Amino acid sequence: VKHVTWNADAAEKGGYEHFMLKEICEQPGAIKATMTSRILPGQPVKLDDIAFTEKEIKEIEKIYIVACGTAYHAGVVGKYVIEKMARIPVEVDIASEFRYRDPLLNDKTLLIAVSQSGETADTLAAMREAKSKGVKVMAITNVVGSSIAREADNVLYTWAGPEIAVASTKAYTTQLITMYILGLYFAQHRGTMTNEEIEAVKNDMLTLPEKAEKTLGHRETLQKFASNNYMHKNMFFLGRGIDYAVAMEGALKVKEISYIHSEAYAGGELKHGTIALIEEGTVVIALATQSRLYDKMISNIREVTTRGAKVLGLAVEGNNSIEKVAEAALYVPPVQDILIPVLAVIPLQLLAYYTAVQKGCDVDKPRNLAKSVTVE
Amino acid sequence: VKHVTWNADAAEKGGYEHFMLKEICEQPGAIKATMTSRILPGQPVKLDDIAFTEKEIKEIEKIYIVACGTAYHAGVVGKYVIEKMARIPVEVDIASEFRYRDPLLNDKTLLIAVSQSGETADTLAAMREAKSKGVKVMAITNVVGSSIAREADNVLYTWAGPEIAVASTKAYTTQLITMYILGLYFAQHRGTMTNEEIEAVKNDMLTLPEKAEKTLGHRETLQKFASNNYMHKNMFFLGRGIDYAVAMEGALKVKEISYIHSEAYAGGELKHGTIALIEEGTVVIALATQSRLYDKMISNIREVTTRGAKVLGLAVEGNNSIEKVAEAALYVPPVQDILIPVLAVIPLQLLAYYTAVQKGCDVDKPRNLAKSVTVE
Repeated sequence: VKHVTWNADAAEKGGYEHFMLKEICEQPGAIKATMTSRILPGQPVKLDDIAFTEKEIKEIEKIYIVACGTAYHAGVVGKYVIEKMARIPVEVDIASEFRYRDPLLNDKTLLIAVSQSGETADTLAAMREAKSKGVKVMAITNVVGSSIAREADNVLYTWAGPEIAVASTKAYTTQLITMYILGLYFAQHRGTMTNEEIEAVKNDMLTLPEKAEKTLGHRETLQKFASNNYMHKNMFFLGRGIDYAVAMEGALKVKEISYIHSEAYAGGELKHGTIALIEEGTVVIALATQSRLYDKMISNIREVTTRGAKVLGLAVEGNNSIEKVAEAALYVPPVQDILIPVLAVIPLQLLAYYTAVQKGCDVDKPRNLAKSVTVE
Repeated sequence: VKHVTWNADAAEKGGYEHFMLKEICEQPGAIKATMTSRILPGQPVKLDDIAFTEKEIKEIEKIYIVACGTAYHAGVVGKYVIEKMARIPVEVDIASEFRYRDPLLNDKTLLIAVSQSGETADTLAAMREAKSKGVKVMAITNVVGSSIAREADNVLYTWAGPEIAVASTKAYTTQLITMYILGLYFAQHRGTMTNEEIEAVKNDMLTLPEKAEKTLGHRETLQKFASNNYMHKNMFFLGRGIDYAVAMEGALKVKEISYIHSEAYAGGELKHGTIALIEEGTVVIALATQSRLYDKMISNIREVTTRGAKVLGLAVEGNNSIEKVAEAALYVPPVQDILIPVLAVIPLQLLAYYTAVQKGCDVDKPRNLAKSVTVE
C-alpha cells in the first residue's frame, strides 16, 4: 500500500464559488502530475506500479475497458487511443452491462477497470467476475488503497488530487492521460509505433498543461453563452470519431448538474432520426476538432442550422471557417488530433457549470446523485 | 439477380390510417416469411444465398456489424445473439463512424452490413472500404438487387415486403430474425450449440408470428397511454442486457415521429448521471423481460418512481409483480429470453405511433427525415 499526502487546504474551495469550478481550473496541474515521471523525453515510458511481463504484454489479444458514467466516457476515448497506438482490439463496456453479458474472455484478455473512487460497485463486481475467470485485471483509479486498486493485478493511478464535486472533471482528464500513457506503453513493447512517433506524442502531451490553462481562458465567453441559453429544455452535442466520445461526456455534464436533457450524437447519425428533433432555436454544441473529419462536421452543422439550430462550434485555432456556419465558435490550441479530447472537454465542462449556476442548481451536489456509487 | 413479386395492393394502406400502423401490424407475416424455409424443424439451418465455405465459417475471428439508425439497433441485438450462440466476438459500429475509424481488419474478419433499402450511403461506403481491405462482406437487406446486395459476397434477405413509412418497423423485426438465423447457422457449423439447443431455439422462433399477433393486441392500452402522455417533452427508456438494445430502438421511434426527446439508458447507468433528470411526472418506459435481470430492473424502477417518475413496465406474462412498482404494465407472451426483442419492440412501436398521432404529427413522413439516406 502506498500513501499519498493530500493537505487539508486542497479540500477547501480556495476562493472558488464551487468545488466543481475549482476542480475544472486545477486540470492543468492534475494533468501534469499524472504525466510526471512517466513520459520523460528520450526515455521509455515507465510505469512503476505495473508488473506485466514482456510476454504478457505481447500476448494480449483483447482489452475490455469497464467503467460507469464519466469513467466509461474516458474508456470510449481509450478505445480510439489504444487501438490506434497499440493495434490491440478494445471493447468498452458499461460495468453493469458487462457483468451480466457473459462476455467472451480468456487468459489473453486484459480487463481495465476505471473508477475515480476505486469503489464503484458495478465496476468492482465486473473486475472480480473477470478475475475469477483467469483474466488479468488492471485498475485506473484516483484513490490509493481503494478496493479496485487493492484487488487489481496492476494499478495505474491518476494523480488528480481529491475530487469533491459530484460531477467529475479533473478525474476524467487525468483518466484520458492514463489512456495515452498506456497506449504508448503497449505500443513501445509491441513495436506498433516507431521511437520517433512515440517521442512526438510525448512531446505534445507535455504541452497539454499549458494549453489546458489557455483553454480555461474561455470562461467568460461560456458564462455569457450559458446566461443566454440556460432556459432551454434540451441541448445536443455533435461530434465524429474521438470528438463523439468527448461529446458524450459534455452531454453527461450538462445532464448531471443543470438537469437539461442533453444528448450526444455521432454527426453521421443525425439524418437517421435525431434531426427530427431539431427546430428553431435548438441549442447544438458541435465539436469539429479532428482534421480529417472537419469538412464532414461542417456539413453536419449546416444540416442543423438549416433547420433553425443555434450552433456553438468548437474547433482548433486557425480553423475559423467554422464561423461561416456556426453562430459562435470557440478554439482550442493545436495539438495532435488524438490528444485533443483533453482540451476539448474543458469548454464543455465550463458550459455545464455556468448553465447550472445560471439555473440556480446545487452545482456540487446535484439532486439524486452521489459522488461514488458504492451500491449496485 | 433474383426477382421478388410485390403486388400493387401491398403498397396501399389497406384500411389503415397510416402506412406505419399497417406495417407494424404486418409484422407477424413478415417475421414468418423471413424464417420460412430457413429454419425447418429437424433440418439444418439453410441459407440459399450464402456461399461461405465450411473453412471460411470456422476461420471467422471477428464480426463487425455496420449500419445506421434502426438497422444499427438491430445490430446491437445481433451482437448479443451471435456472441451467445456462436461465441464469435462481434463489434457493432455506426457506419459513418466505422468508415473513419481505421478499424482493425484482416482476412479472418467478417463484415455484416445491415440496411433496409440496401442503398444507405454510409453503410455502402463502409462495406466498400472493408472489401477493399480483403474483408469478407455480407449484406442483410430488404431490397433484392440493391447496391449493398449486389456488392456483398453474401446476402441474407429480410422478406418484410415494401416498407413505406419513414420510421422502420417490420424491417427491424425481420432484421432481428436474420440475426437469430445467422447465429444458429454459425453455431451449427462451429459446434457451439448442441442440436437440441438449436432445435429448441428454432421451435420457439416458429411461435413468434402468433405471439407477435397477440402482442399487437395491446393497441388500445397504448393508445390510451399515449393520449395521457403525449404532451411531455421528454421520455426515457430503461433496460438491461438485450432489453437495453430494444430500449434504444424504442427511444429512436419516439424521436423520429413524435419529436419528443427520448433516450435509452442501461438500468445500471442511471445512478451515474441520468437519474438527475428524473422529476415528478417524468415518463419512463421500463423493459424487464429478461429473467436473470428482472430483479435488478425492479430495483431500477423503484429508483425512478421514488423520484416521481411515471413508469410503464414491460414484462413477460406471469411476472405481474412489476405492477407493485410500475404505474402500469404490459406483458408479452413467454419465449426464450434471447428471442424476446421481436415481441418487446412492438408495444414501443405502437407507443411511438399513437403518441405521434395524438400530437398531430405527419406520422409517415416526419419532418427533416428521408426514407433511405442515400447521401452522406
